[in-house]
Amino acid sequence: MNLDIISIGDELLIGQTLNTNAHWISKEMNAIGFTIREHVSIADTEEAILNAVEHAMSNADVVLVTGGLGPTKDDLTMPALNKYFGGELVRDEKVYQHIEQLVTSRGFVMNQNNQDQAIVPNNCEVVHNANGTAPGLWFEKNNKVLVAMPGVPYETKAMITDTIIPWLKQQYELPEIINQMVYTQGLPESMLVEKIADWENALPETIKLAYLPSPGRVKLRLSSLGKDREMLQRSIDEQIEQLKAVIPQYIYSEEQEDMGMLIGELLRKNKATLATAESCTGGYIAHLITRVAGSSEYYKGSVISYANEIKINELNVKLEDLEQFGAVSQQVVEQMALGVQQKMKTDYAIATSGIAGPTGGTDEKPVGTVWIAVATPKGVFSKKYVFGKLRDVNIERAAITALGMLRGCV
Amino acid sequence: MNLDIISIGDELLIGQTLNTNAHWISKEMNAIGFTIREHVSIADTEEAILNAVEHAMSNADVVLVTGGLGPTKDDLTMPALNKYFGGELVRDEKVYQHIEQLVTSRGFVMNQNNQDQAIVPNNCEVVHNANGTAPGLWFEKNNKVLVAMPGVPYETKAMITDTIIPWLKQQYELPEIINQMVYTQGLPESMLVEKIADWENALPETIKLAYLPSPGRVKLRLSSLGKDREMLQRSIDEQIEQLKAVIPQYIYSEEQEDMGMLIGELLRKNKATLATAESCTGGYIAHLITRVAGSSEYYKGSVISYANEIKINELNVKLEDLEQFGAVSQQVVEQMALGVQQKMKTDYAIATSGIAGPTGGTDEKPVGTVWIAVATPKGVFSKKYVFGKLRDVNIERAAITALGMLRGCV
Repeated sequence: MNLDIISIGDELLIGQTLNTNAHWISKEMNAIGFTIREHVSIADTEEAILNAVEHAMSNADVVLVTGGLGPTKDDLTMPALNKYFGGELVRDEKVYQHIEQLVTSRGFVMNQNNQDQAIVPNNCEVVHNANGTAPGLWFEKNNKVLVAMPGVPYETKAMITDTIIPWLKQQYELPEIINQMVYTQGLPESMLVEKIADWENALPETIKLAYLPSPGRVKLRLSSLGKDREMLQRSIDEQIEQLKAVIPQYIYSEEQEDMGMLIGELLRKNKATLATAESCTGGYIAHLITRVAGSSEYYKGSVISYANEIKINELNVKLEDLEQFGAVSQQVVEQMALGVQQKMKTDYAIATSGIAGPTGGTDEKPVGTVWIAVATPKGVFSKKYVFGKLRDVNIERAAITALGMLRGCV
Repeated sequence: MNLDIISIGDELLIGQTLNTNAHWISKEMNAIGFTIREHVSIADTEEAILNAVEHAMSNADVVLVTGGLGPTKDDLTMPALNKYFGGELVRDEKVYQHIEQLVTSRGFVMNQNNQDQAIVPNNCEVVHNANGTAPGLWFEKNNKVLVAMPGVPYETKAMITDTIIPWLKQQYELPEIINQMVYTQGLPESMLVEKIADWENALPETIKLAYLPSPGRVKLRLSSLGKDREMLQRSIDEQIEQLKAVIPQYIYSEEQEDMGMLIGELLRKNKATLATAESCTGGYIAHLITRVAGSSEYYKGSVISYANEIKINELNVKLEDLEQFGAVSQQVVEQMALGVQQKMKTDYAIATSGIAGPTGGTDEKPVGTVWIAVATPKGVFSKKYVFGKLRDVNIERAAITALGMLRGCV
């Protein structure tokens, strides 16, 4: 089954907004067995929309459209689709009530724009948008399906996960595709490639391997396509078992990419608590942990000690060690971890101190130097890393690495 | 002048690689006056390449193609283009020497793959690839130009900047384009539309307006295209002055989208310092601030008080207020802001306390309820918000809103 994705919006064409929707949707649709034939991004004009829809509907079985469904004048997707499918625009009571509830719960009064968003073509199914006011539209014509969704990523994601995927699975018989991930942490891509070369060369032809690097991690994807899901899975599982024997210490999960979630699961299982003391990561570790729903069960809090006086006053770092070894040192980072562990009375604590860049480096401690400490019920340990030159990437790598160190001892 | 971008590669269609090339190229081409008509991403097959090229060459004046120029079996762009333009494949001596120099400088010996990369169609201009072995190809047909480049972003960027932009400017007389942004914060899109409707309706026809919403913010883009850059800019500036009179309190910048950077600039200009006390935002505000290089100049740190005992012990929140009003209350959030301001001896402090979700809500305080306080040298103030149901989005909206509140008083 072929699937086309049409992204509507001038912001994509002038290079203002990166098209993350097409990327995310492709991954989801590929995972349930569709072959994605084409992405196309076009302008907010009726002509461009009609041409792209015509082209996609004559080449693909399913067409997913995002963008241009909002309440403003530059949102032309609905009238254009209504013209293409030849329906009439009518008010949908269920949509109206949902919008009214959303708007009033946010403390606003319904205005004309809000009311207009309840007007939809009468020859489509409405797809509920739990997180916004613009409804999705599911059209069918000549045994083909076109679904229009808003361009706001979190609204679209929820609609696809909650409604569109179940509906598509009901309508089409799709081949089995298995994309099995193996999440590794601690080896750069080029080293990983070398370490697992023999294993990779011996993979059966039916299994495709891809390397997907991101700061601090490399994901491996093993893909296989066929009719018999069990057989595909068995073959992939065998290969993963062999891989585990080659790099046991670098694989952190086969299911959970999100290190914050993984740490949360571990802490909850062990009924243990955590605190953090962050300098160079500046709250990013805390954010990765608290993004996870329910994290208040095991996470007590953090002292972000950007200034040295906060390290001294709040974390009991010794002034003489700060002066002798500097803030980016084993002595200071270990005292930070122990200080917050004691203050917040937790089982575990993580601390970071480093030079995120782009300035502040020296010959001895170049930009990218980061000390990370983990305090456990049995004591504290720490390690020095030298990452790269980019501030954002250093913050992310330090945070992921710190969570990786904690994982090893919970 | 219309321009199409074709991106070739299965990795784009299965959602493995985000198409940053099309985004970057669009921005560059828009800036020199091209109107980007369409992006299309297609598979690595001769059929898909020929169809896409045929379609683009009959609709656009210039076509830029990336991907599929490498040395491996799945790289089909060159043979497909050679078929389309009807040339012959011959070895190019200059390209050969460049490849040889690159390969040997990296300590390798030329192999068959390397040698094959010097074979190019004889009816195109070669575009030098300073950073890689695959040359770019500049074809012309019926007064139209098609340029093929490799998919590796840093190779393509250098080729576009160093060669393709100068060549395009020489060949075409391009109009001036201005895209001016206005960043607003504090009003949902539908309310903003209403507030500025009169201004929008009175915009001259030469100026196009777009709304670009993201959690907590709406960006407005005013675009204009013409021959006289100064006149275009003057006309846009006039409209922005009028807009400022309509919604002065909601516009936070015309240049700086990043709230963390904006706050940093304000604090630095006023030689003021900041601390944060975060509950529901869990370190995300600290992260937005410390992502900015040099933030240690004005940012002292944070107490992330996920547990109530931390609020009491570290931020001097009164136990009786916590018990009487709950953690998500005006009393508690103001005490948090004052507590961290005092502890870290800063001029300003921000505090958040809310129910990020998905659980923890009550009838009185539903998920999405967030209290935000700002402590200033003159005292503390606070405000209650009710955001939505999604944890990630609530965290982001609360953080952006808190920074927006702080902006109003530094």
